[in-house]
Amino acid sequence: MNTLEAISQRHSYRGRYKDIPVSREDLKTIMQAGLDAPSGCNKQTTSLIAVDDMDLLKKIYNVIDPPVAESAPAAIFVLSEKIIAYRDRCFNIQDYSAAIENMLLAITELGYQSCWYEGHITDDDRINDRIAEILNVPDEYEVVCFLPIGIAEEEVKITQKKDFEKRAWFNSFKAEE
Amino acid sequence: MNTLEAISQRHSYRGRYKDIPVSREDLKTIMQAGLDAPSGCNKQTTSLIAVDDMDLLKKIYNVIDPPVAESAPAAIFVLSEKIIAYRDRCFNIQDYSAAIENMLLAITELGYQSCWYEGHITDDDRINDRIAEILNVPDEYEVVCFLPIGIAEEEVKITQKKDFEKRAWFNSFKAEE
Repeated sequence: MNTLEAISQRHSYRGRYKDIPVSREDLKTIMQAGLDAPSGCNKQTTSLIAVDDMDLLKKIYNVIDPPVAESAPAAIFVLSEKIIAYRDRCFNIQDYSAAIENMLLAITELGYQSCWYEGHITDDDRINDRIAEILNVPDEYEVVCFLPIGIAEEEVKITQKKDFEKRAWFNSFKAEE
Repeated sequence: MNTLEAISQRHSYRGRYKDIPVSREDLKTIMQAGLDAPSGCNKQTTSLIAVDDMDLLKKIYNVIDPPVAESAPAAIFVLSEKIIAYRDRCFNIQDYSAAIENMLLAITELGYQSCWYEGHITDDDRINDRIAEILNVPDEYEVVCFLPIGIAEEEVKITQKKDFEKRAWFNSFKAEE
């Protein structure tokens, strides 16, 4: 699969996962893809914890309410540090988003499915803080996202998007007619 | 090139570009990669303008101070709309960052170089607002980034990053020893 194929074949998967483990080698490859992403002023504000211990994963899934992706045999938790790039500018959201996109593409390339769960754990009920506690994450890091990883058991649904012409133009903004 | 190769071979290029145009076909492929990125609640907050008209490009480079990438024969300007995903949550930064990363990988795949220029145009001097004016961008969109595109004339320098073990772990956060 080349990059363009992986990009067009990446979809958010919210179905059940097969009961087949994800190898450590694949998890490392996916995490390395995340770490290879650029970061503002190379501050490398993103860190990662992969969880493949089933008891630990069950403990984490227990605090995710409403439950999502509970059948995934592995997950990567994305940690972010608010490190200033220069003056008052901090690009940690950009940094972790680029890292997540790289990981989603690596996951696609390796034949797995995933979904970017962010708002689900970073809302007012602060599920992410409970996850951070379980994973021994220090206070200076925020758990901002989790990516379940596994082989899809159900059909992968494709999200419909606007046509190219409504979001991309040449040499000038073009109002919709 | 497969996805993992493109991810590891993507680097921020700040050198001169060769005087060779980027085809419309390639620009479209790169923009489509950007639009294929996921977005929070599928709000598709990111839009794109590719500039390959040299007079227009010169006009834009003239407002970028200090100048960067002035030899690039094409550039993509990234537009973002602050559309609420749900309640008070807006994921437009995540959305455009994933789109940018997809485009950087497509650029790498196609044999070009680029660099994520964001802070350079979104600082207090608001170079992005002057670019928006030149490109007829309506007020509800913010120009958040520009990606020069072209073939490198100079050597591509590789940014050093921390070792895997300092940013990625299994089943628990691991403090540095």
